[in-house]
Amino acid sequence: MQPAGWPVIAQHASDGRLHHLLTLEGVPRETVVALLDRAQALMDGNPDPRALAGRAMCTLFFEPSTRTRLSFQRAAQRLGADVLNFDASTSSTTKGETARDTLKTIEAMGVQCFVVRAAEDGAVAALAAAAAPGTSLVNAGDGRSAHPTQGLLDMLTLRQAKGVDFSALKVLVVGDVLHSRVARSDLHALRTLGAGEIRVCAPRALLPGDGLLSGCTVTTDFDAALDGVDAVMLLRLQRERMVEGLVDSLEDYHRDYGLTPRRLRRAAGDAVVLHPGPMNRGIEIDDTVADGPQSLVLRQVANGVAVRMAVLEALLARA
Amino acid sequence: MQPAGWPVIAQHASDGRLHHLLTLEGVPRETVVALLDRAQALMDGNPDPRALAGRAMCTLFFEPSTRTRLSFQRAAQRLGADVLNFDASTSSTTKGETARDTLKTIEAMGVQCFVVRAAEDGAVAALAAAAAPGTSLVNAGDGRSAHPTQGLLDMLTLRQAKGVDFSALKVLVVGDVLHSRVARSDLHALRTLGAGEIRVCAPRALLPGDGLLSGCTVTTDFDAALDGVDAVMLLRLQRERMVEGLVDSLEDYHRDYGLTPRRLRRAAGDAVVLHPGPMNRGIEIDDTVADGPQSLVLRQVANGVAVRMAVLEALLARA
Amino acid sequence: MQPAGWPVIAQHASDGRLHHLLTLEGVPRETVVALLDRAQALMDGNPDPRALAGRAMCTLFFEPSTRTRLSFQRAAQRLGADVLNFDASTSSTTKGETARDTLKTIEAMGVQCFVVRAAEDGAVAALAAAAAPGTSLVNAGDGRSAHPTQGLLDMLTLRQAKGVDFSALKVLVVGDVLHSRVARSDLHALRTLGAGEIRVCAPRALLPGDGLLSGCTVTTDFDAALDGVDAVMLLRLQRERMVEGLVDSLEDYHRDYGLTPRRLRRAAGDAVVLHPGPMNRGIEIDDTVADGPQSLVLRQVANGVAVRMAVLEALLARA
Repeated sequence: MQPAGWPVIAQHASDGRLHHLLTLEGVPRETVVALLDRAQALMDGNPDPRALAGRAMCTLFFEPSTRTRLSFQRAAQRLGADVLNFDASTSSTTKGETARDTLKTIEAMGVQCFVVRAAEDGAVAALAAAAAPGTSLVNAGDGRSAHPTQGLLDMLTLRQAKGVDFSALKVLVVGDVLHSRVARSDLHALRTLGAGEIRVCAPRALLPGDGLLSGCTVTTDFDAALDGVDAVMLLRLQRERMVEGLVDSLEDYHRDYGLTPRRLRRAAGDAVVLHPGPMNRGIEIDDTVADGPQSLVLRQVANGVAVRMAVLEALLARA
Repeated sequence: MQPAGWPVIAQHASDGRLHHLLTLEGVPRETVVALLDRAQALMDGNPDPRALAGRAMCTLFFEPSTRTRLSFQRAAQRLGADVLNFDASTSSTTKGETARDTLKTIEAMGVQCFVVRAAEDGAVAALAAAAAPGTSLVNAGDGRSAHPTQGLLDMLTLRQAKGVDFSALKVLVVGDVLHSRVARSDLHALRTLGAGEIRVCAPRALLPGDGLLSGCTVTTDFDAALDGVDAVMLLRLQRERMVEGLVDSLEDYHRDYGLTPRRLRRAAGDAVVLHPGPMNRGIEIDDTVADGPQSLVLRQVANGVAVRMAVLEALLARA
Repeated sequence: MQPAGWPVIAQHASDGRLHHLLTLEGVPRETVVALLDRAQALMDGNPDPRALAGRAMCTLFFEPSTRTRLSFQRAAQRLGADVLNFDASTSSTTKGETARDTLKTIEAMGVQCFVVRAAEDGAVAALAAAAAPGTSLVNAGDGRSAHPTQGLLDMLTLRQAKGVDFSALKVLVVGDVLHSRVARSDLHALRTLGAGEIRVCAPRALLPGDGLLSGCTVTTDFDAALDGVDAVMLLRLQRERMVEGLVDSLEDYHRDYGLTPRRLRRAAGDAVVLHPGPMNRGIEIDDTVADGPQSLVLRQVANGVAVRMAVLEALLARA
């Protein structure tokens, strides 16, 4: 998913500290575990409400996403960081300015961290390459490449449910894997944490052809894929897949890939269900599953704030 | 105005404390008085700017309303609560998610209070039914049903002008009563506080047919209705009433129901004029009245912040 | 640029303190210098993060401008002031309310300072005339009249680069002077600070006809104008000048008035380049110049926050 020519940005500073969070690919296991441990501690304890006082985070969204923006904003608030919001998806605001100039301008206002969402693969890394040494970027989703804090929050959610040892875990990722940055970040993290078996299931037209799935058990048969899994990680189906002809109809998709209570019974009895939201109820997930005892959907949201607090703290806390 | 089937939500917790504020209907007199007393004390004193530190309020507006949103935001700021804004009226943000899922998602981010505006009657109560036990909702206006903080701020304004005993007070509510949630909350509060006489005046097409007006003196003759009243509570005329054919023209409306200086002379010499804003100057109110010595319009706005501080404190303060 | 009939508002209170900041025209040299000194001190030191605690600033923008809004917001955050944003350029929010009523309403919510941008000349002064005695307004740009904080930040930037004595300085203002509030505020400030020589260069159709340029060396020849100058202050070219027929084409404009590296060599060897942003790269400025060692564009942005902190402090700090 890295188009030729986009800059390879070191996420770690020379002293090993995390400086940007652009992708989970290549992030060492100990860094992932440390972030998850810290997120859990922040959740269990009383975070210092002045921990990041005087530091500023700016959300810079070239694609709209209120949920992710609010989650980062809440994380910043809980640590006392100042927040600016720049909604670059409302076009008139930028007046033709380049994304790089927008970043450099807001950076010059005394902002130390940018949370960036962009439609193009690699766009956040490209901006990170332009940032000043003291500025950290968090990728809040770029194209179909990566959404690392989503990957982290999903791992935290799995860990709370299934324990820290992932080696015996059978995890199924199902849905529009081809276009999903969530799937990519989840797969990177699951591998890093040593998940026992990773299954991937999608209609053929929504399966990626590249090396992303190496080592995964890949199938188009959802029923078979569910057999005995400990966790089902659903993906959101974008309506535009219909327009593009990649999916015939919502009804067909639900029949073949919708998680119904009946289907869920094929998984392990204590299997858990994750979804990054917003859910298409009645399409990739039935109400009974979404609101049932095995669903961890709201737990994911709560963990999202904790994970983002841990990330902001790691990037922004003064030495 | 409660359509069959919408949930009846207890606003009070089992210990008698206010848990939600959805409507003023049925709220005991002592609760209303306590909120008004507290609002007045907050206005007269120096509220603790850390009173709600660490607590978070989210505005969740399915209809746009900058004024009401800013008023709640200012109230939260003055008590040190964190604020998130979710403008659900800009459609792309929700991506087809249900209002309930939106609420549950933001709730899971660690938000303890939602200020909700919705176009449908009962929509806020329906969301309150879905909220976790630790979450409080404030109705910032739903359909034509209720706008309880507006009702409270109007009562505070009347009380400052006319004293705490409403029993001798003649109050006139005039305008588009049929479609007005402000009128409903005002009428509920005026009855609860024992207003001596409540008059209601509107063109026939804008008078409600249900039991709302029981006990009120109802007329279509504005001049007669004004006779000797102590307070005139104007309502905003929505332009769509013309389109719907409920009002012939703005000129006609102004001629029959516009408050001119000449008309105001029919009221008591020390009568006061209230309007929830934004005002349609030259339609329901003349400039001379709006900006004149009897107008309490800006006092209402100031009281709005105080009343909302009192409500947020009642709902959010830790035991 | 003051149309007949707009109110002349005293910017200074009777005790000489600055009360509004509407224009730099007529502001005494000692006030300008004091603001620049204070901005520099705030930049060099650690501003008190509670200096304006409990005070509230509202941005009230009738024209969109995310950059300027964020800069004021960051300034307020760094001094601990509360911030409200009212984007009046999204029309549905105001429901036909007058700008004056919007201001008076938000003022009544307990806001002590408004940062206002408006399309019409004099609109901010007109609002200042309606404000309560305890309310201060900052003009964040009105029509083509004034943008005083931009003027101040440009002066701070020049001063850092060239020293406090402007008497030997040759400064060139180039571009769409006719429509530029930035040019006006820069010219006012340059005169007040005693700049040695002020040159103004623009295509004839973009040169103002009024007295604004008295005392300036005026030319349409950019190459000649650059000769030996110490500072080049570029202006943004609005695309609508093409539509209006005032500029033939972007290509022509760039050929005659674009600052290329080659052209810049005509200026003094240590000349500096300023631009208020957002830059039209390849039109009024080439990439090599914009990102080159003589460009102070990002320094201007950083200075903008410092200058706005100084202004907010001057207007809002309690005696």
